[in-house]
Amino acid sequence: MELTGQSIIGYQRGGNTGELFYAFDPAAGEELKPPFYSASPAEIGKAAQLAAASFQTYRQLMGGERATFLRRIAGNLEDLGETLVERATRETALPAARIRGERARTANQLRFFAAIIEEGSWVDARIDQGDPARQPVPKPDVRSMLEPLGPVAVFGASNFPLAFSVAGGDTASALAAGNPVIALAHYSHPGTAELAGMAIRDAAREQGLPEGVFSLLFDARQSVGKVLVEHPDVKAVAFTGSRAGGTALGKLAASRPEPIPFYAEMGSVNPVFILPSALETRAEALAKDLHTSVTLGVGQFCTNPGVVVTMAPADAFAASLAALMNQTAAQPMLNRNIAGAYRRAVSERSAHSRVKSAGGQPEDVHTEPKDADNGPDNCRSRAALFQTDAASFVAHPELQAEIFGPSTLLVAARSREDLLNVARQMEGNLTATIHGTERDLREFADLIAILETKVGRIIFNGFPTGVEVCNAMVHGGPYPSTSDGRNTSVGGRAILRFTRPVAYQDFPESALPPELRDQNPLGIWREVDGRFTK
Amino acid sequence: MELTGQSIIGYQRGGNTGELFYAFDPAAGEELKPPFYSASPAEIGKAAQLAAASFQTYRQLMGGERATFLRRIAGNLEDLGETLVERATRETALPAARIRGERARTANQLRFFAAIIEEGSWVDARIDQGDPARQPVPKPDVRSMLEPLGPVAVFGASNFPLAFSVAGGDTASALAAGNPVIALAHYSHPGTAELAGMAIRDAAREQGLPEGVFSLLFDARQSVGKVLVEHPDVKAVAFTGSRAGGTALGKLAASRPEPIPFYAEMGSVNPVFILPSALETRAEALAKDLHTSVTLGVGQFCTNPGVVVTMAPADAFAASLAALMNQTAAQPMLNRNIAGAYRRAVSERSAHSRVKSAGGQPEDVHTEPKDADNGPDNCRSRAALFQTDAASFVAHPELQAEIFGPSTLLVAARSREDLLNVARQMEGNLTATIHGTERDLREFADLIAILETKVGRIIFNGFPTGVEVCNAMVHGGPYPSTSDGRNTSVGGRAILRFTRPVAYQDFPESALPPELRDQNPLGIWREVDGRFTK
Repeated sequence: MELTGQSIIGYQRGGNTGELFYAFDPAAGEELKPPFYSASPAEIGKAAQLAAASFQTYRQLMGGERATFLRRIAGNLEDLGETLVERATRETALPAARIRGERARTANQLRFFAAIIEEGSWVDARIDQGDPARQPVPKPDVRSMLEPLGPVAVFGASNFPLAFSVAGGDTASALAAGNPVIALAHYSHPGTAELAGMAIRDAAREQGLPEGVFSLLFDARQSVGKVLVEHPDVKAVAFTGSRAGGTALGKLAASRPEPIPFYAEMGSVNPVFILPSALETRAEALAKDLHTSVTLGVGQFCTNPGVVVTMAPADAFAASLAALMNQTAAQPMLNRNIAGAYRRAVSERSAHSRVKSAGGQPEDVHTEPKDADNGPDNCRSRAALFQTDAASFVAHPELQAEIFGPSTLLVAARSREDLLNVARQMEGNLTATIHGTERDLREFADLIAILETKVGRIIFNGFPTGVEVCNAMVHGGPYPSTSDGRNTSVGGRAILRFTRPVAYQDFPESALPPELRDQNPLGIWREVDGRFTK
Repeated sequence: MELTGQSIIGYQRGGNTGELFYAFDPAAGEELKPPFYSASPAEIGKAAQLAAASFQTYRQLMGGERATFLRRIAGNLEDLGETLVERATRETALPAARIRGERARTANQLRFFAAIIEEGSWVDARIDQGDPARQPVPKPDVRSMLEPLGPVAVFGASNFPLAFSVAGGDTASALAAGNPVIALAHYSHPGTAELAGMAIRDAAREQGLPEGVFSLLFDARQSVGKVLVEHPDVKAVAFTGSRAGGTALGKLAASRPEPIPFYAEMGSVNPVFILPSALETRAEALAKDLHTSVTLGVGQFCTNPGVVVTMAPADAFAASLAALMNQTAAQPMLNRNIAGAYRRAVSERSAHSRVKSAGGQPEDVHTEPKDADNGPDNCRSRAALFQTDAASFVAHPELQAEIFGPSTLLVAARSREDLLNVARQMEGNLTATIHGTERDLREFADLIAILETKVGRIIFNGFPTGVEVCNAMVHGGPYPSTSDGRNTSVGGRAILRFTRPVAYQDFPESALPPELRDQNPLGIWREVDGRFTK
């Protein structure tokens, strides 16, 4: 598979006249060939128009046919073999083993949604049979199910070149529900994006799907994305990235003549609460495991634990963690912007009047960002550990800002109430974690009750990094962790984001979708007259 | 039950110092006593603070306990007897029989949601059991379910003083899901609102629920609503009203420091497509039934059929309909604003260069609005029938604007393609209706396919007015019929609007909500390891 640097517009390739840019190897500190060309306004329009035209055919395919498509994509991704691994590794500085694992997860996600749509019950089919004899008015026959929204724009994430990018969970769930997808490559790994994009395009072509079910656009400076979000043929957007980026795009989506659903996952500090008995009995192990979670993937996870709340005294735990942070070698981050932003954020936090630098090499980090310098050192970042007290944390909301990278903030509470207060003052987060005994959990039932209103997932005696792709997973949370906390971008419910219910009243059997016919030809679970039945 | 005109703030009453206003009897053309007092900023804050404080207790009640609360409300509403009917009749000019029917519907809605939460499966419980032995990493135990959002602000609708107001479907579904409700009385029927509010407050008190689970605020000039939508303790808003009102409030909700879900139902023209065979075989009956649907409740339904598309020639049908519209007596509308807006809209449409006035008394309607005149005639409106052709309809988007009242627009298509084009150019609507034979439906399968992407409910050989409250009902549709077309405000799915999923990872049995425990103590339907089971 030769990279061309051109967008994929249905079954055609884009031109090479748009603004060009190069991928950058953050470990080696060098640009990578070939050049990539930004999609032109005409190409964006063509991708949107093809997507809209393909929608009527694609949405009416049987679940099994779309499942075949998703499985083909998974197979094609795997068939890319080491070509994909090598390119992704160079573009992200993530280790090959991580990329291989992420590819497996990405393929599994596609097969996970394939299984869901093949089985078919996800459409939430509901049937209320009519009663022409009812008084004072006849009861109509009403049947409804979830149906797709239309073309979905998917923005790739910097930190998951596969699982949250071109062929990632947003694309998989949008395609599964019956929506065409226009993916936007992240500038940080365009070659990986092109390889994944070709895998999807080939799968669509092999299956004879209408042109436009999938397109991939390149974007040198975040202008293509804006045009895409405002395009009248685009009916929903999924984005994973910064709060600033998500907020700006969300405003565009909301101020269109026809506002559209906009799903942004925007970052989270994922507070960890260490209850007294856990601290007493396993401070050493907790420090070790927390260090692993904080520095995993150079801390570049949306579930990275960025705030750790203990009940004082936690000196031994803090000392152990500091020692581990001190020993952590500098590692290349995903790209120059992320490394620069990390340095600036760490530098700012070091200077905060209520915060103490407690480990890692913040003194190395203090140096001014050298954004003009393209050398490999410019992308390397060291771990950073900070400490504050609960009262200061509560009084300074800026301490809840995510530092994207291998950094965390220890918050020392003086009392149970102090700890609960930290929980009460937390903004919305993707996750919260509690370490303790079962007895702790009973005694801190009010902590759970608070966290239930603040986060999408609560973890007991584990760590938030590592999001299991399963039916029950919730990877979402109240604002500002996402733009729309009613949803999840991982797990079975992710498909629901790209649907809406449609009802059919007094329709003859032959005009109903198979999911709603009397005989239940697809054998799916349905609610008939209020009762679940197959 | 004596009306006081004071807001209901938890278990207290508001003061009588805020700006005062009176209800107005549109049939008699006179103000009604007593005066109502706008809630003060302090009262709004108190209602929000009480709601937030009650949330932790209320959301953790068992479904059966909340079901009892909803049933008590239904009983209290019914116990209001003729007091409620008389007041609502005077405030809205709707006939007593309609108010009695609407009260029955409102009580039924409360009992409908009571049954749903008592049964309990609506929480979409999902369990993925862990596997500590899995390689390369152990599989965590992940369980999730839907949980409530927090205090919900509910705006009463002008046209349904009971079923879409203080104790209506939004309140019922928000309370059912475990959210406290702060209701905002519509200025057009504040006495009805106060009676319904007392019914809810008394039900809460009888059951010993925490103060603040429900409050009711009065608002002289739509300023209280704005404060409420921007209050940090309010976590979601449900609104039924005009597109202008919904759009303005939606912008407020989206531009808060913490944006919140905002559900507005904003109006719809509910296109009716009459296919050739139907027109040929039953033009007379269709004209009669359509006339009934258009003029029902003086046309003041969000599902009122405001556009009727036929394939030419439809002269006999149009003539029959015109005759019926001509015979329709002037009727009092809900209030002076609505009557004035109707007159202005009808006058504007009569003057449209591509539109012909075809029936009703548009000449009577042409007179300037007499908003300063409080006489009874000022609220009376006549039916109005208009005609245009498909090409003009497609070329003039302003002809898709809803005229709220007893008016409809006949659109003559010259061909099948012409008719499909009208469907393709339709904005989002709550409903679409098709009249024809089963064979028509097969031949116009592409019409159904278009409508499936445009509306929330498609009706065959019926009329859109009269929304059945049932599990499968969809009363929602793509923008601009609602602000968020992924939802419905009527039917079983309405409860989902006020929820979000929360996951528990590796939680001990004792710390899980009962819905997610191994033994399924509530006996609800759940997805366990991907399979539906009880």
